[in-house]
Amino acid sequence: MSELKISHRAEKTPPSPIRKLAGLAQAAADRGTHVYRLNIGQPDLRSPVEFLEGVANSINPVVAYEASKGSSKLIGAWSEYLNRGYNLGITAEQMLITMGASEALIFAFMVCCDPGDEILIFDPTYANYIGFSAISGVRLVPLPCPPRLGKAIPSREEISRYISPYTRAILVCNPNNPTGSVCDDNELKTLIELCRERDLFLIVDETYREYVFDNTKPRCVFELAPRDPNIIVVDSLSKRFSLCGARVGCMITWNQDVMRAAFHIAQARLAAATIEQDAAAHMLSSIGEDYLFEARGEYQRRRDTAVKALAEIPGVETYTPEGGFYLLAKLPVDDAEKFATFMLREFEYQGAATFVAPAAGFYMNREMGRQEIRIAFVLNEGDTKKAIEVIGAGLKAYGANR
Amino acid sequence: MSELKISHRAEKTPPSPIRKLAGLAQAAADRGTHVYRLNIGQPDLRSPVEFLEGVANSINPVVAYEASKGSSKLIGAWSEYLNRGYNLGITAEQMLITMGASEALIFAFMVCCDPGDEILIFDPTYANYIGFSAISGVRLVPLPCPPRLGKAIPSREEISRYISPYTRAILVCNPNNPTGSVCDDNELKTLIELCRERDLFLIVDETYREYVFDNTKPRCVFELAPRDPNIIVVDSLSKRFSLCGARVGCMITWNQDVMRAAFHIAQARLAAATIEQDAAAHMLSSIGEDYLFEARGEYQRRRDTAVKALAEIPGVETYTPEGGFYLLAKLPVDDAEKFATFMLREFEYQGAATFVAPAAGFYMNREMGRQEIRIAFVLNEGDTKKAIEVIGAGLKAYGANR
Repeated sequence: MSELKISHRAEKTPPSPIRKLAGLAQAAADRGTHVYRLNIGQPDLRSPVEFLEGVANSINPVVAYEASKGSSKLIGAWSEYLNRGYNLGITAEQMLITMGASEALIFAFMVCCDPGDEILIFDPTYANYIGFSAISGVRLVPLPCPPRLGKAIPSREEISRYISPYTRAILVCNPNNPTGSVCDDNELKTLIELCRERDLFLIVDETYREYVFDNTKPRCVFELAPRDPNIIVVDSLSKRFSLCGARVGCMITWNQDVMRAAFHIAQARLAAATIEQDAAAHMLSSIGEDYLFEARGEYQRRRDTAVKALAEIPGVETYTPEGGFYLLAKLPVDDAEKFATFMLREFEYQGAATFVAPAAGFYMNREMGRQEIRIAFVLNEGDTKKAIEVIGAGLKAYGANR
Repeated sequence: MSELKISHRAEKTPPSPIRKLAGLAQAAADRGTHVYRLNIGQPDLRSPVEFLEGVANSINPVVAYEASKGSSKLIGAWSEYLNRGYNLGITAEQMLITMGASEALIFAFMVCCDPGDEILIFDPTYANYIGFSAISGVRLVPLPCPPRLGKAIPSREEISRYISPYTRAILVCNPNNPTGSVCDDNELKTLIELCRERDLFLIVDETYREYVFDNTKPRCVFELAPRDPNIIVVDSLSKRFSLCGARVGCMITWNQDVMRAAFHIAQARLAAATIEQDAAAHMLSSIGEDYLFEARGEYQRRRDTAVKALAEIPGVETYTPEGGFYLLAKLPVDDAEKFATFMLREFEYQGAATFVAPAAGFYMNREMGRQEIRIAFVLNEGDTKKAIEVIGAGLKAYGANR
């Protein structure tokens, strides 16, 4: 009998709750069922034409390595884009291009923490943070922060209670995935001050920065703490410009030690993809403000449609998220994962099924979220409405089935 | 005074010896000096037209996420490509698409090893393995295997002596970077058998597989050990098709535990870039055998040119590599890094400078390689010859200068 075994950390890396049921969804689609995908933040909005032009322009006889730090054109265009919107004074020194926000977060975990060190997060949390922690050996310490708390983060006193000698950073996703909550300036200042006082890094995942609703102004944390060496911002084009497949993100920090170390890790993996960087540079240096303005309005309408449609289903509880493009909804079932599985495996309504992400995977606290699902309002209003109608019909059939 | 500190592992991640002097090379280029880049495996060969067509075809209104496992079209085309050449019987179950071979190697390190576990490597080694080990907390154990040993790996007995209770895998790059040595079938069998007997993983980095010279037949290790669950092959399109900037690699294994765990890590980082996967799928399903046949001949000629030109420089020692596109050359200097720095910072010959990689960064043993450089024979014969002529002139000037 072979003793060949995989590592403990590999055993502990959880499957993605967002993509977990993907095989069942594919099987349903293969049976001819139309599958509405509310499980994943994959918008149906068109990518900017400026990006597609950039891809065409990038076609070149030799697809060569980019610099490990990222294309200097892209760094120039992206920092200029941020400086224009938020007046941050970012130069090339503060920016490292990564393969999506995911890689920037992995770099941040590795640079801030040795195995066994801790990062405070707010629970529920973006499920892939749990994956990054397994990979990097970092212990995530969850502070309960359910979406209906009425605030984006717990109080300063509550947060302080969770800081231990092993704590190295606080990580906040703002606007939040999966809850859609948005930190106001006071909440951001609390985090900034606490991190300064306790010598912690503040990692802010601003993937959804521009998607804040009801006339809220988007905020980059550096506006409130210019050049703060405690802060690492993670940014991404995926959600902002409907470019999920481009895998272009970045890390922004004025902390030179962090930047140097992240750069060494970046050198080990050589470089991010060249064509996407060319195209993103072209896009960021030529796109107008209309794209985001229109996209923000569109997501707000989709949010309203989703919230309204969910409110019409008996027994479903939800709320109105302030930003991002997700919300959590509590269903009248014991186990939302079983229900989500049922919906893909056994159910269809008018030829359609809806793929939702069971929310338990977004909670570190295993007692929480069992009855909840995460919904991404990334489909057009008609599809969102129809997809939620399918959930309503599914709940009826599921109740009768058990 | 702030106690904000980066992690020990980040402090330990070394800068890439290949890219270390990149800033000086850029400065030389900015001064108007033509810089021959022999430091990095960035070929000047054209990327296949089938890839570029694939990029153009991929332009699509929504640049959406690919599957975490990789595009099913690409997996189909790549496995078919390998099965055609090596008769391996690979199906989609055995393949995971990664962001270059680099990511596949990081996944392999993490899946095979917990922090503190060991992987045996042959020294000198591909420098970025050292970076991957720092990231993953894996201890690399180096077996001395200098290029002029006359064999690609040490004897079975020597290798066995380095296996400890913490050893989890043997990693071999075949053909080798940086030495250019190629394992013959007996050497591969030794590794296969040893890993079976001692319950170790055998990780084979086959990035340079098709680049073997003097009519040697390229070998995939699975030909000698079909479906062996101990083996993980890492493959890449970067070098084979002059597509370094595409960042498309894969992991191949029949070990279902490894594949499942690697897939969970892959889910955490979502997906590899969509456009490159589309283009690679198009290329692999339509490209003929001419491209590789011609490229192999071209690299063999470049190798011969490089070896001949180096032999003409007094005091330089080198050898004829059997594969890959690198070789190590010993220079008549005390410290090759100082010489490489001199060449970029202070020297030019007929308007040109040559950028070489100091070889010390490729040796785990810090006593070794101080006088050596790694040369990538990735430039056309004329440029290779000229670049080495510049090295010769540089050595003369350096000797006189000291």
